[in-house]
Order: sequence, then structure tokens, then C-alpha cells
Amino acid sequence: MKEFELINRYFKGRGITRRDVNLGIGDDCALVTVPQNCQLAITTDTLVAGVHFFDDIEPRALGHRALAVNLSDLAAMGAEPTWVSIALTLPSIDQQWIEELTDGMHEIAEYFNVQIIGGDTTQGPLSITICAKGTVPEGTALCRNGAKVGDWIFVTGPLGDAGLAIESRKQGLTIEPEHLKHIKKRLNFPTPRVAAGQVLRGLASSAIDISDGLLADLGHILNMSQVSATVNIESIPTSDAMKASLGFEQQLPFILNYGDDYELLYTVPDSNKSMLDVKLRQYGVEAICIGQIKSGEGQIDLLHKGEKFTFKHQGFEHFSKDLS
Amino acid sequence: MKEFELINRYFKGRGITRRDVNLGIGDDCALVTVPQNCQLAITTDTLVAGVHFFDDIEPRALGHRALAVNLSDLAAMGAEPTWVSIALTLPSIDQQWIEELTDGMHEIAEYFNVQIIGGDTTQGPLSITICAKGTVPEGTALCRNGAKVGDWIFVTGPLGDAGLAIESRKQGLTIEPEHLKHIKKRLNFPTPRVAAGQVLRGLASSAIDISDGLLADLGHILNMSQVSATVNIESIPTSDAMKASLGFEQQLPFILNYGDDYELLYTVPDSNKSMLDVKLRQYGVEAICIGQIKSGEGQIDLLHKGEKFTFKHQGFEHFSKDLS
Repeated sequence: MKEFELINRYFKGRGITRRDVNLGIGDDCALVTVPQNCQLAITTDTLVAGVHFFDDIEPRALGHRALAVNLSDLAAMGAEPTWVSIALTLPSIDQQWIEELTDGMHEIAEYFNVQIIGGDTTQGPLSITICAKGTVPEGTALCRNGAKVGDWIFVTGPLGDAGLAIESRKQGLTIEPEHLKHIKKRLNFPTPRVAAGQVLRGLASSAIDISDGLLADLGHILNMSQVSATVNIESIPTSDAMKASLGFEQQLPFILNYGDDYELLYTVPDSNKSMLDVKLRQYGVEAICIGQIKSGEGQIDLLHKGEKFTFKHQGFEHFSKDLS
Repeated sequence: MKEFELINRYFKGRGITRRDVNLGIGDDCALVTVPQNCQLAITTDTLVAGVHFFDDIEPRALGHRALAVNLSDLAAMGAEPTWVSIALTLPSIDQQWIEELTDGMHEIAEYFNVQIIGGDTTQGPLSITICAKGTVPEGTALCRNGAKVGDWIFVTGPLGDAGLAIESRKQGLTIEPEHLKHIKKRLNFPTPRVAAGQVLRGLASSAIDISDGLLADLGHILNMSQVSATVNIESIPTSDAMKASLGFEQQLPFILNYGDDYELLYTVPDSNKSMLDVKLRQYGVEAICIGQIKSGEGQIDLLHKGEKFTFKHQGFEHFSKDLS
């Protein structure tokens, strides 16, 4: 199958058709219209086989995940996702596999009303690079540098599940079937917190998505905002699967260091705290407070039942982690 | 070196700073402002080692080329390039190599006043995916579907040089040193026809960049426009290097089938033909007429000195060509 036939077959004329897309797949470029008084938010992320996912991942999950991690970055800015470009590098053409992969992409794209406006397919070692775009009303984007002393620190959901799914396979941990199912779903079909991100505009002072782990990503906010933080470990939400599978100490690397769940981490001024819960609940998202911003220069003090707690920081980093 | 340090070191705070970039590298997304009454043009292209370039390519050329092929797509729409996102997948960290690669990127980005607004670096087999964005005044973009019967067919420059450079290495052809230097430069440091593309707004009825070869890319225009064409082979411009290195018959696969020179192919109504040369010359680009649009359904008739000429069409396709 020739390159442009592959794009035509699996992407052109399929999925969402947005009115702000003036020209979709099939020319040298796509053409889109950004609404007046909106800024365009742009992010790009690559997923490489054996680095970001197991080689034998089900293709539908890979399609979902590749889009989800990019939409999560838009969510963390409070942007509304609008359009994505997809660059696929495939070792060979397995039509069934590609069909399932693109089904996974179309499903999540439709769910979030996102149009696939362009793509490129090339032969080579399996990887997917997506460039996702979204719009945000001028001046309302959630940045990393807005956290202020006294702000409360929140997350949108349980942490560590995706990491537990990865390590349970790599290390051969024994996990109850129902819990294994849950954490695998969290790894393979993460939900980018798009609605929550948009609700947080005007409420949150800063936001980031947890892709590299809570401590690493909180560190980014602290460094950019030139503040410090205390985090109450026992306030960090975890799933039933996590609680049932691991003891307190064992959970810590997953909760604090692993990312890949794509929950949002954000800070809220005290004056907005009461509004937050009401607004987020309308979108089925809980506001879970895990700590507070303090003055300082990027330090994170962990507290456990009010006592200082020592834990070796170690964020997830590419060029060091190997799934294969 | 950690991932975000790599982005910070080689991209953040370097290169062009555009006023329409509200937030550059360093947050979950970049934020940019699209001018009123402009559409946004978006394209994405991946270059994979061993498929789109020789494994031992000089990194500065790779950086240039990766950006150039994307800017060429913007040129073919008549768009003004504005911002690019760069996703780098590297097998390992060789600082000197990365420095030269990113130097090559920054050089061409600066030349075209393009800001690098985001990136991702991951470990894996060498490849580069770029998503390039540009702006074009509403309704003036050059599409592939506008060619009309009677329009003249033009190219912006000599064809076949890049292909000759590739095949001379693969097949071990003997080429004079000065000519070899020329074709290698055409392969490694192609010039996207950005200025020409913008000049062609309002003059050309359709345009495309020749990445897959003249016949394949003209075929795209013909199919989208539902017309046919005649092409005068002897009118197709070639370099001195090509003329000196190969006989007429030998040149044909390079001129007709190879792409990779990133010249523009475009059609112009007879009424605009006289304007064309004057306008393009101001930007140092020649208007070279190679044929005419006829009625029909996507056929290309080749003429040689007025006589019908038979040549087996065979466009460049990924999944079939192998540089390694």
C-alpha cells in the first residue's frame, strides 16, 4: 500500500468534522481558523515502542494513549482541544493492526471533539508523534509559573496506577485480577482531564499534568513559580487496586515518582478553594487537596501524619527508563 | 542528561523570538496568537534514518533538511511560516552531534523567521518529526484542486539533483567533484520556496511541492482538479551538474520520478502569465513553464520536441524506497 493511500484509507473522511477546519487531510497543509480573542495552544509528544509502551501493546490502546498524552498537555493549560496531526512510523503494514490503532485514535478524538487534520506515514521502527492544538481565551491559560505562597495544591485523581501496571509486569508482582484489570486500563486508556482543565481557568493559579511523577512535576511548578511546597503523603489519593496490592512504603515510588496516569496537578488560591469543589463536581472530577505552597526555592517537604518524611526524589526521565 | 535539560539547553532561549509567541518552550504547551483574518496552515513530516537520509548524514544537514521539508509544504500553500514543534528521537546522547543538528535547525529557522516553540526528546531509533505552522490571509491559500483547463504549468527550479545525489552514492556513479558538491548541497540543504509561494497567492490556481517526483505530484494536482496535462520534457529545467553527468534518457527517472529537491510545481491561468515572471524575479526565482493543463481525468501526456513520448510512470513512495 502506498503512503498516501494509507492516510486516505484510515484517516481521510473519517471521524469528527469541525466547522473551524477549512481544509483537512489531502493537501500540502491543513487550513484551520482560530476563533477571535483566543490563543492557540500547541504541544507535541512522541511515543516510542519499548520506551513508552510495551512492544506487544494492543494497537487500540496505543492509538488512545498516543492521543491522550497530548490532549493531557492541552488540558493542563486549560485549552479546548481542537485539531491533531499524527505522524506514524511503522515497521511494516499490517492492515488489521493499523485499523485497530486508528480506531483507538478516532474513538478518543471523537470523544473530545478533536479533528485529525493531517498526518505522515513512514517506514521505520514503531513510533507515533502527535502534535495537538487547542484554543484558550486570551490570557486565561494555566501556566506553571503562577503558584503563590499560601495556594493549595490539588490533584484530579489517584496516582500510581499506570506505574504499578508497568512494574507489575516487569517485576512479576502478584495482583488480584480485578485490580490488574483496573490498573491496566489506567495505563492503556488514560483519560486526559480536559474538562477539569477548562473549569480551572480563572480558579487555579498554576497547573501541569503529571507525566513524569508527582515530585518531578510539582518541582517544575515550584521552580517556575519560585516557591516551595509541603505535601501530605496520606492525602495523595490512590486507587483500591493500589491499596490492596502494596503496603505504604511500597506504594511511595509509584505515587511520588511515576507519572503516566495523566492526572492534573494544580494550585488554587485560598479565596477560590470553596468554588473549586462545586465547579469540578459538575464534571465528575473530585478536588483533592494534597498540600500547600510555601515560600522558598523549589523545595518539597513531605509530611506523613504531620511529621517530616524523608524520601529519595527520583522523577521519571526518558533516556533512563526502559520498558522492554 | 535529562530530557528537559536537553530541550532547555539546545532550544530554549535560542533562535528567533517572535512577537506572536506568547509562551515558548517550558510549559505544557506553547501559546501563540494567529493574526486576525488569517488562516493557520499546519503540516507534519517525519524523517527516519536509513529511509529519508543516510545514517551518516552530517547532523547540520539533517537539522536543515528536517525543517526544510516541512517549510516546503507551507510554501506550497502560500503560507508564511511562523512556528515549529520538533520531536527528536535519538539512540543516545552525543552532545557534539546534537549541537550541530540543532545549529542546522536554528540556522534555517532564523533565515525564515520561524520560532521553535516546543519539542520532545525521546530515546529510540533516530528520527525527527516536525510540525510546522504558518499563516495565510483568509481565502488566499494555494490548494491542489484549483487547476483549470488552459492553465500553464510551472516549476520554480531544476529537478532531479537530490535524486542524483542519492543514486550516485547508492550506485557508485562517477560525477565531477564540482557537480557532486552541487547536487549534495541540493540534497542536504534544500531551499524551501517560501517567498515564491507567497508571491504566487492570487496568481497561481494550484500548487504543490515536488517531494514525490514531478509525475506523482503533478498527478495529485490533476486528480484533485479533475483535469489532465501535457508536459514538454525538454522544458523541464535541470542543473549543469545533471546535464554534465547523465545523458537524456538516463536523466528522465531523476527529473520525472525523484522528488526531494523541494521545488514548487504550480499552475497559472493564461491571464496571469505575464505578471508572473516580473513578480517572481523580484524574489530571485525564475518562472519556468513546462506544460499546460488539458481536459481529461488525470492523465499526463509527455511531449519531446512536439512528439508523444512514452515513459513508465513510477513515483517515489515510502515503504518501497530504501536508502540504506
